Formats: sequence, structure tokens, C-alpha cells
Amino acid sequence: MKIGILGSGVVGFTIANAVLAKGHEVMIGSRTPNHEKTTAWSKEQGAHALHGTFKETALWGELLFLCVNGSVVRSVLEFTEAGSCKDKVLIDLTNPLDFSKGMPPSLLPEYSNHYSLGEFVQEQLPGAKVVKALNTVNCKLMVDANLVNDGQHHLFLCGNDTEAKNTVKHFLAEQFNWKPDYLLDFGTIEAARLTEGIVPFWVGAMKVLDTPLFNYLIVK
Amino acid sequence: MKIGILGSGVVGFTIANAVLAKGHEVMIGSRTPNHEKTTAWSKEQGAHALHGTFKETALWGELLFLCVNGSVVRSVLEFTEAGSCKDKVLIDLTNPLDFSKGMPPSLLPEYSNHYSLGEFVQEQLPGAKVVKALNTVNCKLMVDANLVNDGQHHLFLCGNDTEAKNTVKHFLAEQFNWKPDYLLDFGTIEAARLTEGIVPFWVGAMKVLDTPLFNYLIVK
Repeated sequence: MKIGILGSGVVGFTIANAVLAKGHEVMIGSRTPNHEKTTAWSKEQGAHALHGTFKETALWGELLFLCVNGSVVRSVLEFTEAGSCKDKVLIDLTNPLDFSKGMPPSLLPEYSNHYSLGEFVQEQLPGAKVVKALNTVNCKLMVDANLVNDGQHHLFLCGNDTEAKNTVKHFLAEQFNWKPDYLLDFGTIEAARLTEGIVPFWVGAMKVLDTPLFNYLIVK
Repeated sequence: MKIGILGSGVVGFTIANAVLAKGHEVMIGSRTPNHEKTTAWSKEQGAHALHGTFKETALWGELLFLCVNGSVVRSVLEFTEAGSCKDKVLIDLTNPLDFSKGMPPSLLPEYSNHYSLGEFVQEQLPGAKVVKALNTVNCKLMVDANLVNDGQHHLFLCGNDTEAKNTVKHFLAEQFNWKPDYLLDFGTIEAARLTEGIVPFWVGAMKVLDTPLFNYLIVK
């Protein structure tokens, strides 16, 4: 499968290397065609590891991951251009975290409480099938759910397209070891307000627990 | 022990009945001395079940529970008067939920993101030792942690006074079956931003899970 990764930070490379190891073709997108890090990565990793602009990556990919800093989502989507994502499933991993006021972070006010980045991404890319997922866990755990409690812990998804959510669920189960029963569907993309809203708590919990490798198991 | 309950809603009565059953003396406070529901409750439950105004309740109680609707906290604290809570441990269970925009609720903007009800309560009652706790679970679970997963799930506390937090931890363990190892201290009262901030998610999860009787077990 052709996987397009929009974003060349730690999360982007973690996802890219994980899917590459699973035998997929991957392209990492960034602002410029000659981005130093992605060019070097591509050279090092061989023929299945490509790099390109955000737009090239979105056009090329069959499944897209959006994993950029929350504060630059707007400009990244402008570079990507909405048409490039038409009819594609896009997994939105972004969080509207604002670290400018110290730790733990707050939420960027424009994407908090009555709005979210998930909704913004879906509005900016009306032709794409946006699924909010993976934004509530550390990137090492994203790509291998078994790193914590034998994979028994929950991930929260939302999005407007049921088929796209099923595609993402299958992908996460098959490629990243997420147990299907532990993938909780919170409904339409508006629920991104809820799943993004718990991320400042996550950062506080990381400090209390002294590790980023943890997750929530909801018990009844 | 003399337990003062500020608030005569479902949460207040649940806490009151639970501590009464454990042999404590309880007073439920409300706005008026002749409040119908608390007067009837007091008559029905006998000599250890008292009722009074917010101020009388705060003055009388050795340990206080604040469990009123988030939108009326300001006015309740005005009725209570800060001096009545001086040097007392007050467990703040309130959440700044705003149901006026539909379900799931958002947060009241004035107590969200860069502020919280926990901080507001501590500022309004500077002589009290405010401990934010119990606000992240259903009231039935508050008073009996064993109702879910044999008590193996986490509760999050915060507050500026370490001794007060220890008092609350012991109380929750001895009276409400919370396992000490599952009580996570998030630091000063500022962390109420985090623990109140996850409550809209809780309401969404309640809908997905179709029960209010659940909680988070953090797994590593």
C-alpha cells in the first residue's frame, strides 16, 4: 500500500519507519522538495522510501497520515491543497497543544472546547475522509500497541465516514497490533473536541508516571 | 467525624448517605435553612443527619465536600463565606460543564484551558485546604470504588497542601474503598485544569459505553 505521511517530525518518521518495515511504500511530505532530513532518510532507506512536497505526498498516497504540530496545521493544509486529498482516507494525529504558557500545555484556544483540529482538518479538506485517531498516545505506542499491557488498552477514533473508520481500524489492527475490541468509535469528527481535549491531561500524567509509554484501559 | 456536604443534588445526597452509613455525622448545606429536600432527609435519617445553610454546614463540618453544579459555584461560595472554611480540608468535586450547547457538554469558558474551578475555589477560600478529587467518576463509584473492576482503576487528585491530600487519600481509602496505589497526585491545584478538562470526554465515553459505571485504569 502507498502510505503518504504529511509531516517530518518525530511522529512522522516513527510512522514512516514502522509501515516501511511492514513492506509498504512510503512517502514523507514536507514543505520543500529538497528537505534535508526526508531526502537523507529516503536515500538511506531505499526504493520504498520516498520524499516529496506535502502536495506530492497527498496525491501519491492511498492512505494519508497527518502528523504535524497543531500550530502549523492550517499552513500545511494550504501547501497540501484540498484537491490532493480528494476521496482519500486521512488519519489526523494532530493536537492543538500550546506550549507557550509552560508545562503542562494548554489547548490553542481557537481549536478548543467548541471546536477542534479534527473538525478544522475535515472542513479544510471537504473531499477527504478524515479519521481522528492515534492522537492520544505516544508515537512508539501508536505503531506497536503491544508495548503496553499486552495491547489491552483503548484507542479512540472519530470521523464522519463509517467505511473510512473501518479502514483505519483494520489498518491499526493489522499493522500496529491494536486489538479491534479496544478501538472505541466516538462518532462524528465533532468528537475530536473530546479526544483532543484529554491530551493536556496526558502530558500531566506522563510527568506523574515518569514515562510516555502508558495508556488508558477503560474498565467497567 | 463531622462531614459537611455543600450541595443537595444527586452527588451531595450520595456522599451524605454513604458517610452516614459508615457511622459519621453529616450535615447537608443548601441556600436556605428550611430547604425541603434536606429537611425531609434529615428527619428521615435520624440524629446523625443534619441540615443547614451553606455557612452553617461549613462551620460545623470537620471535612467538607463541595458538590454543586459548576455554574453556581461562585454564588454558593458567597453564601458559604470564606471564613467558615478556614483551615478546613475541602474536597472539590465540581466540574465546569456547560450543557447549554447540547451533548456532550463543553466547558464553561471562564473555567477552562487556562483556569479551572479548582483554582477558583482555592482563590475564593484562601484559608481552606482545597483538594480536587472525585470529579472524574460517577457518584455511585465515588463512594464505592469496588463497583468497577474490583477497585483497580485510577483517581486523580490535586491541591496545594500535601497534608490535606494525604487526609483525603486516607479518607477515600478507608471510607470509599479506593486503593491507595490507585490515587494519583497530579500536584498543585493548577492541575485541576487537567482533571476537569477530561470530563467532557467522560460524558462522551459514557454514551459510547452505555453506562456511567466505568473508569480509567492507566496501564504501562
